[in-house]
Amino acid sequence: MTPLNRLDHQIQFILEIDKLKQIVRQSYLTDASRLENSVEHSWHLAVMAMVLAEHANDPDMDLGRVIKMVLIHDLVEIDAGDTFLYDEGHAASKRDREIAAADRIFSLLPSDQAAAFRALWEEFEARETRAAKFAYALDRLQPMLHNLITKGKAWQKHGITISQVIAKNSPMKEGSESLWDYISGLLDAAAEEGVIAER
Amino acid sequence: MTPLNRLDHQIQFILEIDKLKQIVRQSYLTDASRLENSVEHSWHLAVMAMVLAEHANDPDMDLGRVIKMVLIHDLVEIDAGDTFLYDEGHAASKRDREIAAADRIFSLLPSDQAAAFRALWEEFEARETRAAKFAYALDRLQPMLHNLITKGKAWQKHGITISQVIAKNSPMKEGSESLWDYISGLLDAAAEEGVIAER
Repeated sequence: MTPLNRLDHQIQFILEIDKLKQIVRQSYLTDASRLENSVEHSWHLAVMAMVLAEHANDPDMDLGRVIKMVLIHDLVEIDAGDTFLYDEGHAASKRDREIAAADRIFSLLPSDQAAAFRALWEEFEARETRAAKFAYALDRLQPMLHNLITKGKAWQKHGITISQVIAKNSPMKEGSESLWDYISGLLDAAAEEGVIAER
Repeated sequence: MTPLNRLDHQIQFILEIDKLKQIVRQSYLTDASRLENSVEHSWHLAVMAMVLAEHANDPDMDLGRVIKMVLIHDLVEIDAGDTFLYDEGHAASKRDREIAAADRIFSLLPSDQAAAFRALWEEFEARETRAAKFAYALDRLQPMLHNLITKGKAWQKHGITISQVIAKNSPMKEGSESLWDYISGLLDAAAEEGVIAER
C-alpha cells in the first residue's frame, strides 16, 4: 500500500470534522424551531468576533487567533459530546474526555499542524491570553442571546435560575467588561419579566 | 424612543444572521444522513482554509482575509436562497437577488462595518485577489469531497455528469492548481467506478 501523503492526511481530517455538525447543543435557534449544533455555534462565534472585537477589554488582541480558536474550540465534542454549562454531574469528567478526544482528532493532521491546532485549543481552554479570554466571552455571550430571544426556552426547560446564569457567565468579564455589562442588563430585565427564574 | 446605539446594531446583525442556519444546500453530510446548511458549509470552508492554505497557488495570500471571506460569503442567501451550482435557470437572476440581499443584511451593521463586510463579500464575488481565488477554490472543493464520500449522492439525484462537474469546478485552479489536480484524480476514479455519470 502507498503511504498516505500530507494532503491525504489533511483531507482525512477535513472529512472527520464533518461529524461536529451532528453534535446537538442545548441552545435553540433564534426562532426556537430546533436546537443548534456545535458547528453552527462555532460559526456564529467567529462572525461575532469579527463584529464585536472593538468591545474586547484589549482590542489589540490577535483577532485572527480569536477567530481560529472559536472555529476549532468544540472539535473535541466529536468524541466527548457537548457538556451543558449547567450540568455539574458531567463537568467533572469533561476535561478527561476532551483530552482523549483532542489526542485522537488533532493527530489525524500532519504532525506540525496537529501541534498547532492542539496549541490553539489548549490556549482557549487555559483562558490566559487576551485572545482566549475574548473567545471565551463570545462563547458565553452567544447562548445567552439565544436564550433571551427565545424567551428563556432552554433555561426554563432545564430549570436554570438567574443566579446560576450569573455565576456561570460573569467570568466573561475577563474578556469583555462592556459585553458583560450589556448582557447583564438584559438578564435583569428578563428576570423582571419572568423569562428567567429569580431563585 | 432611545435611538439604537452601536452595540445594539451589532447585536441585531448577530441575531439576524442566525437565519443562515436554516438555508439548506444540495450537499449531503459525509454520512449522507441529511443535507447540510449554509452555516455548516461556511464553517467547514473556514477550517479548510486553516488546514489547506499551503496548497494555495500563492501561499503568501492573506489567510486571515480568506477565513473572514468564507465565513460571510453566503450571508446573502438569507434573502436570496442557495442557488445550486448546476442550476442554469436560476443562475441568471442570482447576482441581482444577492445584491439586494447584501444591501439589506450588511446595512444592519454600523456603517463602517457594513462597508467592510460588503467589501469582503464583493472581493469574494469578484475573484480577483489571491485570497478570493483561494476562497473560491475551497468553496468548489468542499461539495465535491462530500459528493465523493457519499458515492455521488447529490450528483446522481440531479443527474449531474462528470463533464458538468469539470466545467463548473475547474476554475478553482486559479486558486489552487494542486487541490484541483488532487480532486480531478478522485473525479476520474469516481467516473470509472460509476459513482458519477460519464456523459
